[in-house]
Amino acid sequence: MIDLRSDTLTQPTPDMRRAMADAPVGDDVFAEDPSVNALEERTAGLLGMEAALFVPSGTMGNQIGIRLHCAGGDEFLCDQNAHVFQYEQAAFAQLFGICAQIVPTADGLLTPELLEERVRPDNDHTPRTRLVCLENTHNRKGGRVLCREGVSRLCGWARERGLARHLDGARLWNACVASGTTPADWAEHFDTVSVCFSKGLGAPVGSAICGPRDLIKQARRLRKALGGGMRQAGVLAAAALYALDHHYDRLAEDHAHAQTLADAVRSASALTLVDDRCDTNLVILEVDPALCSGEEFRQRIEARGVHCFCIAKQRLRLATHLNVTPEQVEQAVAIVKELAAA
Amino acid sequence: MIDLRSDTLTQPTPDMRRAMADAPVGDDVFAEDPSVNALEERTAGLLGMEAALFVPSGTMGNQIGIRLHCAGGDEFLCDQNAHVFQYEQAAFAQLFGICAQIVPTADGLLTPELLEERVRPDNDHTPRTRLVCLENTHNRKGGRVLCREGVSRLCGWARERGLARHLDGARLWNACVASGTTPADWAEHFDTVSVCFSKGLGAPVGSAICGPRDLIKQARRLRKALGGGMRQAGVLAAAALYALDHHYDRLAEDHAHAQTLADAVRSASALTLVDDRCDTNLVILEVDPALCSGEEFRQRIEARGVHCFCIAKQRLRLATHLNVTPEQVEQAVAIVKELAAA
Amino acid sequence: MIDLRSDTLTQPTPDMRRAMADAPVGDDVFAEDPSVNALEERTAGLLGMEAALFVPSGTMGNQIGIRLHCAGGDEFLCDQNAHVFQYEQAAFAQLFGICAQIVPTADGLLTPELLEERVRPDNDHTPRTRLVCLENTHNRKGGRVLCREGVSRLCGWARERGLARHLDGARLWNACVASGTTPADWAEHFDTVSVCFSKGLGAPVGSAICGPRDLIKQARRLRKALGGGMRQAGVLAAAALYALDHHYDRLAEDHAHAQTLADAVRSASALTLVDDRCDTNLVILEVDPALCSGEEFRQRIEARGVHCFCIAKQRLRLATHLNVTPEQVEQAVAIVKELAAA
Amino acid sequence: MIDLRSDTLTQPTPDMRRAMADAPVGDDVFAEDPSVNALEERTAGLLGMEAALFVPSGTMGNQIGIRLHCAGGDEFLCDQNAHVFQYEQAAFAQLFGICAQIVPTADGLLTPELLEERVRPDNDHTPRTRLVCLENTHNRKGGRVLCREGVSRLCGWARERGLARHLDGARLWNACVASGTTPADWAEHFDTVSVCFSKGLGAPVGSAICGPRDLIKQARRLRKALGGGMRQAGVLAAAALYALDHHYDRLAEDHAHAQTLADAVRSASALTLVDDRCDTNLVILEVDPALCSGEEFRQRIEARGVHCFCIAKQRLRLATHLNVTPEQVEQAVAIVKELAAA
Repeated sequence: MIDLRSDTLTQPTPDMRRAMADAPVGDDVFAEDPSVNALEERTAGLLGMEAALFVPSGTMGNQIGIRLHCAGGDEFLCDQNAHVFQYEQAAFAQLFGICAQIVPTADGLLTPELLEERVRPDNDHTPRTRLVCLENTHNRKGGRVLCREGVSRLCGWARERGLARHLDGARLWNACVASGTTPADWAEHFDTVSVCFSKGLGAPVGSAICGPRDLIKQARRLRKALGGGMRQAGVLAAAALYALDHHYDRLAEDHAHAQTLADAVRSASALTLVDDRCDTNLVILEVDPALCSGEEFRQRIEARGVHCFCIAKQRLRLATHLNVTPEQVEQAVAIVKELAAA
Repeated sequence: MIDLRSDTLTQPTPDMRRAMADAPVGDDVFAEDPSVNALEERTAGLLGMEAALFVPSGTMGNQIGIRLHCAGGDEFLCDQNAHVFQYEQAAFAQLFGICAQIVPTADGLLTPELLEERVRPDNDHTPRTRLVCLENTHNRKGGRVLCREGVSRLCGWARERGLARHLDGARLWNACVASGTTPADWAEHFDTVSVCFSKGLGAPVGSAICGPRDLIKQARRLRKALGGGMRQAGVLAAAALYALDHHYDRLAEDHAHAQTLADAVRSASALTLVDDRCDTNLVILEVDPALCSGEEFRQRIEARGVHCFCIAKQRLRLATHLNVTPEQVEQAVAIVKELAAA
Repeated sequence: MIDLRSDTLTQPTPDMRRAMADAPVGDDVFAEDPSVNALEERTAGLLGMEAALFVPSGTMGNQIGIRLHCAGGDEFLCDQNAHVFQYEQAAFAQLFGICAQIVPTADGLLTPELLEERVRPDNDHTPRTRLVCLENTHNRKGGRVLCREGVSRLCGWARERGLARHLDGARLWNACVASGTTPADWAEHFDTVSVCFSKGLGAPVGSAICGPRDLIKQARRLRKALGGGMRQAGVLAAAALYALDHHYDRLAEDHAHAQTLADAVRSASALTLVDDRCDTNLVILEVDPALCSGEEFRQRIEARGVHCFCIAKQRLRLATHLNVTPEQVEQAVAIVKELAAA
Repeated sequence: MIDLRSDTLTQPTPDMRRAMADAPVGDDVFAEDPSVNALEERTAGLLGMEAALFVPSGTMGNQIGIRLHCAGGDEFLCDQNAHVFQYEQAAFAQLFGICAQIVPTADGLLTPELLEERVRPDNDHTPRTRLVCLENTHNRKGGRVLCREGVSRLCGWARERGLARHLDGARLWNACVASGTTPADWAEHFDTVSVCFSKGLGAPVGSAICGPRDLIKQARRLRKALGGGMRQAGVLAAAALYALDHHYDRLAEDHAHAQTLADAVRSASALTLVDDRCDTNLVILEVDPALCSGEEFRQRIEARGVHCFCIAKQRLRLATHLNVTPEQVEQAVAIVKELAAA
């Protein structure tokens, strides 16, 4: 089985498991876990931010991030396809009473022009617009690396308008490796950034929400309310620390693999590489309805051992990761090409 | 002063005041107010629905309507410019934990094609899409009367998809008078409909939320939680009953007045009638930036005694209503034309 | 029928109706209703507070009051029998995510001793205690007038502990008339006070939430979200103004009537006047189970034309008000005595 | 250092670490983690319930449990000292809009008599009472094992009244070992039960919420919204499985240690064992104010190497656990006695 469903599916390596087994731990609810503390310090440092908080999932990281800037009756602006709007069960509304105002974009990147008329006036009839959220890389836009100048411009505008800025950086590491930038290069434009250790980096569990010390103190309180306070979480943090040391640079391999898959898609006349682009480790393709539906094509390649997700009527997403070998990529290419030509 | 800001500004007429003064009343929290009961019965009858509940505002009517179909973690679909999203302080999220998914439309009317990919799959990552909201007439689309066939088609699709349907009918009376239809002609496509007595009809206070008996029983409970349970509300209901009797047909005058204003806008080269259309009592115009900003133009006509709202950078909205006389319309036309030509 | 169920049941008098019919009005959503503005100013003045906001119900006044001091994750302290906890559908939690910590008291009055250990420590495991709520007169404690020294002492302690203070003054007028105090005598101890015009005062609809100007500005915004923004609400405010002028002093009659009923209860061996006390217009009595259940006794006197509420297994509440005549009180006394002796 | 602050502070043993390092894992968000699946099946089996869900914390387990039975506008009943009310940041209200009605009890156990008048009537003025929560062992009552007959009686009453029943079983294992019962003996009376692996059992992270299959399916969805969906959580589940195998019976040692500490408290005239009782692994003592405050006494013994929590003005809690040796207990006894006699 060639599992291209998600980069969350990775198995911890033997060395990572060893790091976990040897981790010094303590009760992180009392902030006494040395491995968690080390990971939080390390992550904050990578992002050039004051503090970080380890959380069980990317969803918790992002939703806490949104809640830090918005309360009930407030609103944030995000791309219509943002993960925080699409795949986090609208926790911002469900749990916190926050409204999302979604904005269609061509490339996942909001612009001042798109947002200017979206910011609510100061009026009792409207919620208060407080926050702009970006996502980098952008999952639904095929792992797209955002344009750095565009991010800088948008965030500058938002700052002037008095709006906070949160970055969903679940795959920020991929953006950095693909663009030769550092996490801090991106983080400098934001108040808070969430990053994930269990996607491309291959750690089993965990994300972090990063920002100024006072906000991260509030984040810790919110984590408790959400039930995200874990005890000897150092066993997980140790894996994340190991991943930062050993799995960061190798993301380039995942990107090369994705490129190979993308080229295969480009060469198949019944398939289209969406936006004709593959920046990192996600490949989104559209199946010609003349061939079959997206779900049908997914089942066809699954029957040959290649697993992926159907994310819209005609769309499939393939994700490369730590546990996908070069041989598997070759096999997947062959199977996809063959079935697309059928 | 010629007050074209809103049709909510009307003064009760002497006869309406007399009806209020003479109204039989009781404690409506205990459902013992005969005037409220009569109004609820009358309204339900007009809409061809089982039951209605009197509420202090259109916002309460709509937000209860949404809450009847959605709970925390659920989502509704609406036009991006819908009043429920634009002007009700996102109460659906703030108070009830409900998410809105907004959809841009050309004419305020959602279509199955626009929504098909917006309905969430059955998946723990996504909120549950439960409801479709329409608005008729559509305020931000210039008091537009929705296309009846389009409404029927959309609602039929929604029903098949298992989605509830709520109509924001704050100005449904205007739609009916303008299109020669009855409220029931529209209501038959919806599970719940809110209507308003304090806009075009000219009653001082109140709206109603209408639907099947079991839902309206729940609505009564929600009204209590929101603090909308009033005691001898019959004094208000009596005005609404009077308005239904005496101010319904005369909405045609407001429409004619708006048409006159719209024609003036059409004839002014520095102004554009948005969508080149004026179906009912609202006129939305765009000011040529070469002339001045919308806010500046608003101030200019205000200085001459014509009041209206600036609703976007270059946009003004003029509303005709019970207290706008034919003479005032003529004066407003003259002032607008003169200042647009300046 | 002698209706002793509630002082909310009163009919507006002919003069009050005339005041309503003659009221100058405007759109109160735009703060342009002169009668509402006058009522708000008058009420704030009576309480010695900066500002007041007219709202459709006592529930809305209180719940806005609580929300002004608490947000999601915060907590307030109140007597276990407080109206805000017992009869307002837990709107504080339902709509705003606020927790109530209830405290049993002998007389409805919280004390520093009762609360000292209830205030939460500064700890991520606990909500934040923000507010203390009192109720005067206290409905479930039989219309009890709180001890002024006790209120002063509690509020002083709360201020020192950094806790806000809200007074549910739905029947504050009764407390004042009964104790020869002014509303301001009580209000000086509180940050916010809600008062009601539709209970003893006999206006058809409405309450006010009062406090410092900045909080009342926020209250206005909350009122909008709750759907409590009404248009020409001056017709209601005029009744409240009339009631303040003409129905305030006469509350003493209601109190005398209640005293007569209380004496009848005291003299009936099968009935007990709860706490052997009747301070204002509410009489709470307990039916000896040897006679029958509370509900059964309620039905028996109802069959004879005396209506009241059964508020617990063996407890009935009788309320006197504007529409209860001296003759009716005498008849009720006779009926209650007769049936209690049966 | 002798750490008696909490049984959550335990270090995983070498063998437990080995079990974690060797654990087969998968992506638990897709329900593909064999270790998590095994733990869930094992736990459900122990409780005699259909299904279980692994969650990152006891707080998440309990709050999901409450949410399964209550929604916004609903209410649950619990002991005033229940962990769900005292130490979980009122998440039920903050995130879900649920109200808690707390009830003082002598021994932590609710009774039908205490609750009968607390259940709300069917009335729009009141929230809906839906659920009764118990806690066994009861933390704030000194690790008290609830009376089995009392639990059975209360739960039988609740069932008849149409109320759901949730058990906070964070220390249910202790209750079982101390009373010679099985988890299923207790669980049979409840709809849902939460249990914890990271307290007495000594696993690093995790709890489970257990109940009927349909509710646990909803629990999984709620876990996602809360951000509790973890990926290769099997590394944690493996530790919990190991703990069930190897640390269950040894809870008797913790109880014996606590008994030794309790006897020391009994013998110190300046200390009082609260309720003169120590059923399991928690010892709650009261310091004579004549000696010093609770916090002062805590600091005094801390200066001698014995750590514990001050949980109220004069109260300390000592917890025994896996990492407390017999020698440490003897030393702690000596230190406490000496300082109590000072």
